[in-house]
Amino acid sequence: MTTMAAFTDICQWSSFHCQPSLMVPRITCTGNWNHHGLSSSFSWKLFCPESASFKFSSSRRLVARRSYVPKKGIQVVSPNIGSQTLTIEFLNAWDDEYGGVIVDPESLPSSANAFASTLKASISNWKLKGKKGIWLKITLEQADLVPIAIQEGFLYHHAEPGYVILTYWIPNEPCMLPSSPSHQIGIAAFVINDKREILVVQEKCPCSCPGVWKLPTGYIDKSEEIFSGAIREVKEETGVDTIFLEMVAFRHAHLVAFEKSDLQFVCLLKPLSLEITVDEKEIQDAKVPKTRYNIDEA
Amino acid sequence: MTTMAAFTDICQWSSFHCQPSLMVPRITCTGNWNHHGLSSSFSWKLFCPESASFKFSSSRRLVARRSYVPKKGIQVVSPNIGSQTLTIEFLNAWDDEYGGVIVDPESLPSSANAFASTLKASISNWKLKGKKGIWLKITLEQADLVPIAIQEGFLYHHAEPGYVILTYWIPNEPCMLPSSPSHQIGIAAFVINDKREILVVQEKCPCSCPGVWKLPTGYIDKSEEIFSGAIREVKEETGVDTIFLEMVAFRHAHLVAFEKSDLQFVCLLKPLSLEITVDEKEIQDAKVPKTRYNIDEA
Repeated sequence: MTTMAAFTDICQWSSFHCQPSLMVPRITCTGNWNHHGLSSSFSWKLFCPESASFKFSSSRRLVARRSYVPKKGIQVVSPNIGSQTLTIEFLNAWDDEYGGVIVDPESLPSSANAFASTLKASISNWKLKGKKGIWLKITLEQADLVPIAIQEGFLYHHAEPGYVILTYWIPNEPCMLPSSPSHQIGIAAFVINDKREILVVQEKCPCSCPGVWKLPTGYIDKSEEIFSGAIREVKEETGVDTIFLEMVAFRHAHLVAFEKSDLQFVCLLKPLSLEITVDEKEIQDAKVPKTRYNIDEA
Repeated sequence: MTTMAAFTDICQWSSFHCQPSLMVPRITCTGNWNHHGLSSSFSWKLFCPESASFKFSSSRRLVARRSYVPKKGIQVVSPNIGSQTLTIEFLNAWDDEYGGVIVDPESLPSSANAFASTLKASISNWKLKGKKGIWLKITLEQADLVPIAIQEGFLYHHAEPGYVILTYWIPNEPCMLPSSPSHQIGIAAFVINDKREILVVQEKCPCSCPGVWKLPTGYIDKSEEIFSGAIREVKEETGVDTIFLEMVAFRHAHLVAFEKSDLQFVCLLKPLSLEITVDEKEIQDAKVPKTRYNIDEA
C-alpha cells in the first residue's frame, strides 16, 4: 500500500478544511461560538413587525431610545413608547459561521406559553436580520416545547437519548444545512495465527444462520478507532487478546439499520493469547479450526 | 493492494451476518416484519395489572371469554365482566427479531389522551410479555405525542426531518439497543492529469483560510457510493468530468459535526474534460497549476 503512505500528507492536510457545501455548526461545542448580545447596529426595524404579538399600533410614537433589562436566558428589549413600555423577548442565540443561529439550549423558557411567544418573536427577528439556518436543541426535560417548535415550522434534524435537535431554514431557497449522520461503522476481525489458522465464531443472534462459522464482527463505539474496535470485539466475543496488523478491505452497504448506510472494515489481527472464553450472551461457540488459510490462493 | 482483492470474499460473506451485540430492527422497513394481532396464547394475565387505569376491582368477576372489536390502528380487547364491559386498548406493534417490539407508526391515536392511556397500557403489556426494546416512531404531524412518550420513560434515539424515533428499554439490565448513526462520510478528490498536474480549489466557506488552495471535498449523499460522491463533488465544484481510478487513503476524525465522527476518503480521479466552471456559491476559484506532482517523491 505504497500509495496510501504517499498520500497521507494530503489526506491530513485536507482534513483541516471544511466541506463547504454544508453548514455544520458545532452545536454542542458552545465554547467555540461567540455569544452575542444585541449588537450595536441593532435598530428598530428588528422589532418583529411580522409577529402579531409585537406589532406596534400606528398611533404609538416610537422613540429611538432603548433599555436592556437582563433576564436569565432571554434577551429583553424594552423600548419607551411615550409613557408606555413594551417588552419584547428573544431567545438567546449565537451566530454560527454560516450566517445561521444556534439557540442557547440553557436559556429556553420552561413555560410553554413563554417559549411560544419568544420563539415566534425570535424567528421574525432572525428573518429580518437575514439569518439562514436556525439550530434548536431541546432536552428530554423540555419535551413540552417540541410540539411548539414544530408548529412554528421547525423540522427534526437528529437526536441522542437526552435531546433532540431541530432546524429551521429561513432563506427562500433549498436548505443547505447538513443531513444527520449517515453511517454506522462496523468491523470484521480476521484473527490469524502463525500457523495460518483463523479464529471463527457462531452467533446466538436470531438473524444468523444456525451453525454458520464466521469472523467476529461488531460496531465500533462512539469516538473509537477502527483498529481498537476490532481488538475490543474479539476480546469481548472470544476472550482472545490480539494486536492489529493491517486493514485489508471494507464494504459499503446502504439502507441497513434505520435506512442508513454501513461501512464494515475487515481488520487483520494477530492473536496474543490462546484460551477462548466465549461471551455467552452473544456467542454460541468460538474456535480456531486446524485448517490453514492460504492468503495467496484466496 | 493484493490483500484487498484476496479478502473480498470474506468481506462480502461477513456482510450478510448481523452484528449481534446490537438489536437493530429495520424500523422503516415494516414489510420485513410480521404483523401480529393478539396471539392465540393471549391470556388474562396480559391485562395490564400494573396500569392504574386498567386495574380490575376485586369485586368484579372475570369471565374467561373475550371478544375482539376491530378499530383502526389499535388492538382492542373487551372482556365481559358480569354485565359490564371494560375496553382495554393497546398500540398495534410488531415483534422484532431481538425480543423487542416496533409500534405501528400508522396506528397512533391522534388524541393525546387516547395515546397516553394506550401507551401506558401497552408498556405494562409488553413488560408482562417479557419484551425488551420498544421502538416508537412519531411524525411531525404527531408532535403533540412526543412529550407524552417522554413522560412514560421513552428516550430519543434518532431523527430525520419528518419524524423522531424514541426507544424504551424494559429489562433491568444495560440497554442493548444500538446507538444512532455515528458517522458522516466525506471525500477529497485527487484529480491528476497525464502531466501529473492536480486540480485545486479555493473555497468561499468562512471557515477556510482565505487564499488556501486545496483538494475538492464534500460529503457523500444518502446511499451514494464513495467513488460516485467524489465524481459528483468535482463536477459540482469545478465543472470537470472525471473517472474514478483508486481510493488511496482515508482519515478518521472524532467529535466533528454534532459530536459525531467523520471518515474522509481520498479518491484518485482522472480528468475527462479541461474546462473549469466554478460553483460560485461555494468556490472562489479553481485551477490546475503547472506544477507536476511526483507521487514517488511524496
